[in-house]
Amino acid sequence: MLRLPALLLLLSLGSVCCPPGVLSGLPLGSRRGPPGRAQPPRAALYQTRYFPQKIDHFGFDQDLTFQQRYLVADQHWRKNNGSILFYTGNEGDITWFCNNTGFMWDVAEELNAMLIFAEHRYYGESLPFGNKSYSDSKHLNYLTSEQALADFAILIQHLKETIPGALNAPVIAIGGSYGGMLAAWFRMKYPHVVVGALAASAPIWQFEDLVPCGTFYTIVTNDFKKSGQRCSESILNSWGAINRVSSTDEGLKWLSSAFHLCSPLKSKQDVAVLKAWLSETWVNLAMVNYPYKADFLQPLPAWPIQVVCKFLKNPKLPDKLLLQNVFQAANVYYNYSGAASCLNTSQSATRNLGLMGWYYQACTEMVMPMCTDGVNDMFEPRKWNFHVFSEECFKLWKVKPRPSWIPSVYGGKNISSHSNIIFSNGGLDPWSGGGVTRNITDSLTAIVIPEGAHHLDLRASNPSDPKSVLQARALEVQYMKQWIEKYRHKH
Amino acid sequence: MLRLPALLLLLSLGSVCCPPGVLSGLPLGSRRGPPGRAQPPRAALYQTRYFPQKIDHFGFDQDLTFQQRYLVADQHWRKNNGSILFYTGNEGDITWFCNNTGFMWDVAEELNAMLIFAEHRYYGESLPFGNKSYSDSKHLNYLTSEQALADFAILIQHLKETIPGALNAPVIAIGGSYGGMLAAWFRMKYPHVVVGALAASAPIWQFEDLVPCGTFYTIVTNDFKKSGQRCSESILNSWGAINRVSSTDEGLKWLSSAFHLCSPLKSKQDVAVLKAWLSETWVNLAMVNYPYKADFLQPLPAWPIQVVCKFLKNPKLPDKLLLQNVFQAANVYYNYSGAASCLNTSQSATRNLGLMGWYYQACTEMVMPMCTDGVNDMFEPRKWNFHVFSEECFKLWKVKPRPSWIPSVYGGKNISSHSNIIFSNGGLDPWSGGGVTRNITDSLTAIVIPEGAHHLDLRASNPSDPKSVLQARALEVQYMKQWIEKYRHKH
Repeated sequence: MLRLPALLLLLSLGSVCCPPGVLSGLPLGSRRGPPGRAQPPRAALYQTRYFPQKIDHFGFDQDLTFQQRYLVADQHWRKNNGSILFYTGNEGDITWFCNNTGFMWDVAEELNAMLIFAEHRYYGESLPFGNKSYSDSKHLNYLTSEQALADFAILIQHLKETIPGALNAPVIAIGGSYGGMLAAWFRMKYPHVVVGALAASAPIWQFEDLVPCGTFYTIVTNDFKKSGQRCSESILNSWGAINRVSSTDEGLKWLSSAFHLCSPLKSKQDVAVLKAWLSETWVNLAMVNYPYKADFLQPLPAWPIQVVCKFLKNPKLPDKLLLQNVFQAANVYYNYSGAASCLNTSQSATRNLGLMGWYYQACTEMVMPMCTDGVNDMFEPRKWNFHVFSEECFKLWKVKPRPSWIPSVYGGKNISSHSNIIFSNGGLDPWSGGGVTRNITDSLTAIVIPEGAHHLDLRASNPSDPKSVLQARALEVQYMKQWIEKYRHKH
Repeated sequence: MLRLPALLLLLSLGSVCCPPGVLSGLPLGSRRGPPGRAQPPRAALYQTRYFPQKIDHFGFDQDLTFQQRYLVADQHWRKNNGSILFYTGNEGDITWFCNNTGFMWDVAEELNAMLIFAEHRYYGESLPFGNKSYSDSKHLNYLTSEQALADFAILIQHLKETIPGALNAPVIAIGGSYGGMLAAWFRMKYPHVVVGALAASAPIWQFEDLVPCGTFYTIVTNDFKKSGQRCSESILNSWGAINRVSSTDEGLKWLSSAFHLCSPLKSKQDVAVLKAWLSETWVNLAMVNYPYKADFLQPLPAWPIQVVCKFLKNPKLPDKLLLQNVFQAANVYYNYSGAASCLNTSQSATRNLGLMGWYYQACTEMVMPMCTDGVNDMFEPRKWNFHVFSEECFKLWKVKPRPSWIPSVYGGKNISSHSNIIFSNGGLDPWSGGGVTRNITDSLTAIVIPEGAHHLDLRASNPSDPKSVLQARALEVQYMKQWIEKYRHKH
């Protein structure tokens, strides 16, 4: 689950500009988690452990360590003849990923696999400087993908040396979204540590000009187009309606009431926040457009965009009627459980994701250009403006983003000399636009799941799974078995 | 040219221990360069340029840049159809490597190649913090191989973008010794930047327990065994002779005079320094045991060990007679030109090597265990003692070495998934003990030059070159052409 960095632009909005970006309110503490997650379903099945990692793998002046959390599930582990499936934790609490990566649990027995879920530094409990970790750019300095990959490599070395019978076990990296990027990069940079990687919904090309900046929102729009007649057109028209209605004080009041907002709109900036929050809602729906009832970012019905689009059939309605329908549509996402008494524009998804950390990462390494034009997509037009983005980053964190670093260090599109990486992508997932969707070589293979949203393949098996995801998972297991076999042949 | 870190142990010797390590005196400023090097022979053939590099590629708090020096020779460059040979600069002034890597100049025309010699950060003129670069562990924090490799990657990207016709030129990394390690690691970590690497005399396995710690000194000893009857035995016996003679004040005087020392010996510690200096002399001779008159570390005759061994034919002589012979032998190394009026135990090699930097690197990443036993080698026995080493490092630099980091990050012996690296080694070179001397795969190939010392293949062609080095160079060019061809086929 990858959040849009475009959002940053809104965080310290000085003027009423109109980014179609998404809003994820800060501070983190104000967020509510989705209901029913207090007891992670698999908590009894894994052990929680900690390993001391160097805070700085790449320098020697700072020689302190921090405790990296990781989870171990060894029900199906076979000493001396087992494999290790290693989840390369991304931007959030590792228990959440552990509980939302049912695929690993489902295939553990077949692969005699021990499951390891490694938490990414600066997220969950793995805070290098405790509650000071986010205090300033000095303390945040070690929050990079390179440091995270080094953590993974050192942790695996430790596991192999300390778990009886694990020394020669083949290790496979698995991750989704940013975690999928890490899995792919891990295999690229540490092929001596992992025999292969399953990189699910990993937009490793959503950088610089490797893909057009508009692709992401075009896919979101297509999801809505396909899910109901005139649905995307309704959303496209809603921005103008909001602008018109909100131009008077009476209109602001009406909007606040019509959207059941917890805090009434008071300024043009509040309206920009509302629009960004709506944009993020549509984006998030595209990511979690799963074929069954699920509770990933929010509790949602099966094929939630179809449900949403039932309210958005008539784009030509008068402004207020159209916006009442937009509220009904958004309410599907925010209030499917019926528990919310009002909607909060500073809340849009699970609090299990570490937003602060991801915004910092977006402002340093993870610069993902995004744009909209209102023609190929259903959002208000906005160009990608690196300069403005960079200035916001400096205001927020006192750092300057380096947009070309990720392609420089991980190879951009020139990755054909690597091997044993599966790039899986869902056809419905907006992040697939920045992903690898065609085979690069025999051993850098792409799997596309036309009916899949964001890393559907990593989720637990479900009776409503479309055939394409079953085939994808079967193929993934087949590749993994090949890697394991080839490795055993050599060792 | 790689200096022995074992020497560190001597730098702040508190007791008269007896490391067979080598001594390279500090401070750097006190050293004399070899004569006749004021005007580098190729200075007119290359241009000196500078490129601003991030001081810290792996963190965003420190956003300063420094000017990295690099040299460009484009006499044989063919726009749009040329290749780039990129010397991955090691621990010293880049002009010195430029002038001692004649191989690149010799093959430039055949490969239509532009030659680039990139200086390693913290050496030569490429000082991140000017004259404060070595002031403390804070300023030294960015002296690592990972930062150096990132410099190379970013520099190549810049060159490709700015030199007309270079955008799609295949780049080959070439380096010797530590520079060879960097060339190999560069291909491993940045295969999207270089199509292949020639890693000459690169002891990438001289870490942890990947090779026995005694191999290095055993090879030195074998060089002396092969170069003159009873030669190594004479050296073995010399340590006892020094210990006995130096046990009296009169003996110390005699030794100082017999060795024509610039500073007379006054203590047991001075004697330890003398022995370490002699050890380093024998080690250096093994490295530069070239088949022709050369001036790499010092001006020397052809096959210098044979010349040295002419003085060391009788190990059974009485102490003082034996030591007079040892002086004559050492004098070949230090005074072949006849210009030295006295010998300085704090001088052993060219000042073009940046010793401070290398000692820091040896105390952080580049921990290379070394040991002697006086049985398989001609040195006083000394075990590898990491604990003592680590304490010395902390005293010197306030840093703690991480002996397992290099194998963790670069793969140790598990590098078979990489491709297009030639590991060349000289059979006479003590560093070959830590090198790759057998093919790992079809495209990770080893070339052994039995009559070669330290990266002889990288030196300019010479009428006295043994056939084995001619064959090695021909094979190297053949591989490089294959890489280039394969690359062109794809682009």
